[in-house]
Amino acid sequence: MITSDYSKTKITGGFWQKKQEMLRKTTVWAVYDRFKETGRFDAFRCDWKEGMPNKPHIFWDSDVAKWIEGAAYITRQKKDAKLEKIVDEVVDLIVKNQEPCGYFNTYYQTQEPENIFTNRDNHELYCAGHLIEAAVAYYEATGKRKFLDAMCRYADYIEKRFKIDRDTGFRTPGHEEIELALVKLYDCTGEKRYLELALFFLNERGVQNDSGDKLTNCFANQSHAPVREQTEAVGHAVRAGYLYCAMADVALRTGDEELKSACERIFDNIVNKKMYITGGVGSSAACEAYTVDYDLPNVISYTETCAAISVALFAMRMLKFDADSKYSDAIERIIYNGFLSSVSLDGKAFFYENPLEIIPYMHTRDRDVSHVSIHLPRQERSEVFLCSCCPPNIVRFIPSIANMLYTYDDDTVYVHQFMQSTTQIDRNGESFVIEQKTSYPQNGKVKITVKGADTRLAVRIPFWCDSDEYQTVKGYQYFDVKDNQTIELDFKMKVQLVEARPEAVFDCGRYAVMRGPVVYCMEAVDNTEYLRDIRIDSHAKFRTGKNAELGVPTLTVKAYRRDANENAPLYSPKHDSFRVFDAVLIPYYAFANRGASAMQVWHLVK
Amino acid sequence: MITSDYSKTKITGGFWQKKQEMLRKTTVWAVYDRFKETGRFDAFRCDWKEGMPNKPHIFWDSDVAKWIEGAAYITRQKKDAKLEKIVDEVVDLIVKNQEPCGYFNTYYQTQEPENIFTNRDNHELYCAGHLIEAAVAYYEATGKRKFLDAMCRYADYIEKRFKIDRDTGFRTPGHEEIELALVKLYDCTGEKRYLELALFFLNERGVQNDSGDKLTNCFANQSHAPVREQTEAVGHAVRAGYLYCAMADVALRTGDEELKSACERIFDNIVNKKMYITGGVGSSAACEAYTVDYDLPNVISYTETCAAISVALFAMRMLKFDADSKYSDAIERIIYNGFLSSVSLDGKAFFYENPLEIIPYMHTRDRDVSHVSIHLPRQERSEVFLCSCCPPNIVRFIPSIANMLYTYDDDTVYVHQFMQSTTQIDRNGESFVIEQKTSYPQNGKVKITVKGADTRLAVRIPFWCDSDEYQTVKGYQYFDVKDNQTIELDFKMKVQLVEARPEAVFDCGRYAVMRGPVVYCMEAVDNTEYLRDIRIDSHAKFRTGKNAELGVPTLTVKAYRRDANENAPLYSPKHDSFRVFDAVLIPYYAFANRGASAMQVWHLVK
Repeated sequence: MITSDYSKTKITGGFWQKKQEMLRKTTVWAVYDRFKETGRFDAFRCDWKEGMPNKPHIFWDSDVAKWIEGAAYITRQKKDAKLEKIVDEVVDLIVKNQEPCGYFNTYYQTQEPENIFTNRDNHELYCAGHLIEAAVAYYEATGKRKFLDAMCRYADYIEKRFKIDRDTGFRTPGHEEIELALVKLYDCTGEKRYLELALFFLNERGVQNDSGDKLTNCFANQSHAPVREQTEAVGHAVRAGYLYCAMADVALRTGDEELKSACERIFDNIVNKKMYITGGVGSSAACEAYTVDYDLPNVISYTETCAAISVALFAMRMLKFDADSKYSDAIERIIYNGFLSSVSLDGKAFFYENPLEIIPYMHTRDRDVSHVSIHLPRQERSEVFLCSCCPPNIVRFIPSIANMLYTYDDDTVYVHQFMQSTTQIDRNGESFVIEQKTSYPQNGKVKITVKGADTRLAVRIPFWCDSDEYQTVKGYQYFDVKDNQTIELDFKMKVQLVEARPEAVFDCGRYAVMRGPVVYCMEAVDNTEYLRDIRIDSHAKFRTGKNAELGVPTLTVKAYRRDANENAPLYSPKHDSFRVFDAVLIPYYAFANRGASAMQVWHLVK
Repeated sequence: MITSDYSKTKITGGFWQKKQEMLRKTTVWAVYDRFKETGRFDAFRCDWKEGMPNKPHIFWDSDVAKWIEGAAYITRQKKDAKLEKIVDEVVDLIVKNQEPCGYFNTYYQTQEPENIFTNRDNHELYCAGHLIEAAVAYYEATGKRKFLDAMCRYADYIEKRFKIDRDTGFRTPGHEEIELALVKLYDCTGEKRYLELALFFLNERGVQNDSGDKLTNCFANQSHAPVREQTEAVGHAVRAGYLYCAMADVALRTGDEELKSACERIFDNIVNKKMYITGGVGSSAACEAYTVDYDLPNVISYTETCAAISVALFAMRMLKFDADSKYSDAIERIIYNGFLSSVSLDGKAFFYENPLEIIPYMHTRDRDVSHVSIHLPRQERSEVFLCSCCPPNIVRFIPSIANMLYTYDDDTVYVHQFMQSTTQIDRNGESFVIEQKTSYPQNGKVKITVKGADTRLAVRIPFWCDSDEYQTVKGYQYFDVKDNQTIELDFKMKVQLVEARPEAVFDCGRYAVMRGPVVYCMEAVDNTEYLRDIRIDSHAKFRTGKNAELGVPTLTVKAYRRDANENAPLYSPKHDSFRVFDAVLIPYYAFANRGASAMQVWHLVK
């Protein structure tokens, strides 16, 4: 069996250490301040009454829970008394206000106590799931059991009501999350009932119509079919991703082959037909949903941050079935692009949606009228938003990014990602250390040293490499490594023009620019307006450089554009005179850090 | 002063005679049948009561009025007793049910008599305007005064309430139309009060907030500024177009230079910045509106049929200020493309919206959820729709298409369009005939013969011609023609690849195909799916042909497409192997006559 243990891994330098430092110093506090201001922390006092400000919202518990989970990961890396104090205060409030039966929800307890467990779509078990995840993380980081014990009582109560008494107004949650949380609770406590409750929720889903479903279409929350019969990613992308995580989790622990097959089918559907080149998923604003195969429009791409995170989490679970680089490649695509774009370079502002293209005028096209014909993603990150699921998801994802590095089984350690790091692996009674030294993704040089044992290493050869240069099994090259041996890899990070399949119709005739795993984009601030008219010279060399203001690498390339002749008619015969200029590209993850600007990922070439 | 007289013009053959025959034999009856079925004609009995079927709608009067106007134009060309009988019955009902004060509206009289002239947005004066236009047309076609007299009484009542007593709940209509109708009534009756009432409505618009405006944004109905200060086309495109017609009408009759200047500014804004290559206007579904400059997205193009008609009507009025081919070129672009696409080749089914591109999967992308994120035009024409303004607008436009042919002043006849036809012009006490013989737009050969007088002819050199071959003034070439002389023109109708300005960002890197005035498109039914990936060979010759099933010309051209490799990943390095094939294009006006199909106007080239 393939397993992993993130707890003994430490990012020691390079790209992700900088991001973790930013997270620890800035982001976690930026999100805390906004949550404090908006009453999300105070809601845990459970004393809100009509007329008071900051009325608790149905999903606020999950916001704070994800923040606590992130704080736990931060404090596990480096003890942080200030963070612990805040968490302990919240935990005290939870325990103080938890109902004797175990129930806890700041919204329902203050506003609708009579309606507990009646409305499938009100995120109640979703909040419970995030609280459980937070409790597990906090226990594992600090050894403090108080929160964990409280959440065990809550889980017990959920089991009683949903599985034993079956007296609730719905049978499965409208927003999945509790399922994967229960598996974590099982892993942490060893209490098999929690795994069985997770399985119960999976088994109940899509079997018959569930009540209280406001979304009218049961595809939206993956209730259209029993989970083992599902074949493709559908509906609300975050709900979907969390469900698929739980399906994989349960299958990994029960050996349920049908469930595993469903996960494989769904994962393949996502990466082969429903994922943007940035790793973003869920292309439609309608219900924040997965849509049909190859539906990847750029200007209206919804591509919610949480959805990208959910696929990375799903892929990481799939790697425990099978060391296949399709999973780890997807993670790489996500973490360097469509996930990372969600947070500003200063760590203070966030995207909910991560568009593949910004055409500023589109945001004002309906200026003359009172309603709009298209939902478009925002052009700039915000410090806070009403539905604030994404910022705390970033707070928990970046400090736990090392979780994506390795899995291992009895004789092999699978190296999935490349980050400067040290990890301790305890296996078969022996303990050994693996060190990575790398500036990835600045370049493709990676040194991996094993200390304390001999082992087989399986190293992912990234999808953007020329695979002919490597001998791989499912995308991994295998090395038998002796104690204290270092293997050196040097993935040639050339700049590539990348095309999409013709079915992705909005990309036809256009090409993306990638260097290694990083997708580059053009912004108007570097290239002036009408990016869609710029043609990259297909024979020209890209020159690497650096944008000092942003502190990110750049690519510069010879390109062409039509001159904007003020007197030309709107339509005229094709002409072939172009102005030559240097187009400048920056990493997609760094876009929108210099104000609102046109941006595009898919370019013409000439 | 430039003037025109459509009454003595007859289309005698060629392209438009076929369309007029189709209209006379099929379309007028298809629309009649649907209107009869849906109760639109019976509504004129004014006996609807709660509980009865077919509750009259606020805009039904205008639907029937436009149909009557069309019937009048048909019967003027060729007496049609059956049509006249239907019209006479409706007129009898109108006169019977008209209030003693002159008011007539089937909706208000049956459903809200207490609310007459209180709701600016309920299309009341819009209906009145169309009834007036119909009455004028029917009088001019048949000499019967009954309808005209009734509508004079109605107009008198409108004058009393709005202009004299000023006791109405709003001052100017939310949907313009009455203004241009009153000018027609003035022209027909010589009663100056009607012209003054039209001017009154123009002068009142945009001066102060008007009441009852549900659209919340006064741009929507062009009430954002006094009409003389308006600078660009804004808001609901049909309302806008009808307003601009009236502004031109009044300026032509009063010599109001400020009003004329506003018309010129607005017209230039439309054709230079807001018109699709098909002549369609009003790109946003939100309020069916004009938007910002260069906002011309293709998949979501709203481009309502009535909006295209309104611009043709506006342009025709502008030609009476100035024989400038920018006006007549716009008419040509509209009538052969974005207007003509609105009716099926069999004359029975209609488009409300005339999209520039159809990507069928987009219509099902939100299948998993209960709401949609984008409004898309329909893929196929319908025989009837709830808001059925467009079909009867077609019924009145095609039989009066000859109205677009000529204007004349004391010494020159301006030839704006090319249609096989004969027209009698009465000028300066002499009467002469102009005959056109042409298969236009099948080819560019046009013979124009003058019989009965010497005259100067100014012939429009179409925008798609190589202008270097002609000596033109404002796009017209001048000929002094003797009695019985024939001039022959032969506009070289080569196939052209056409580009849009870079500001029209969705067209960047793509080219339209035109032959003469006709825009050609690709449909999947001829070219299989993924039209967006097809590259037309930029050096290849287009071969002309004919589609026997549709009875329309075709263009065939060498083209390239990527093979759809089932095993290719979603994203892969750019490759340059293409499959060569013959791409087939048909006139845009003929798309969607073989079932729903992907369609596009803007193509890649290679």
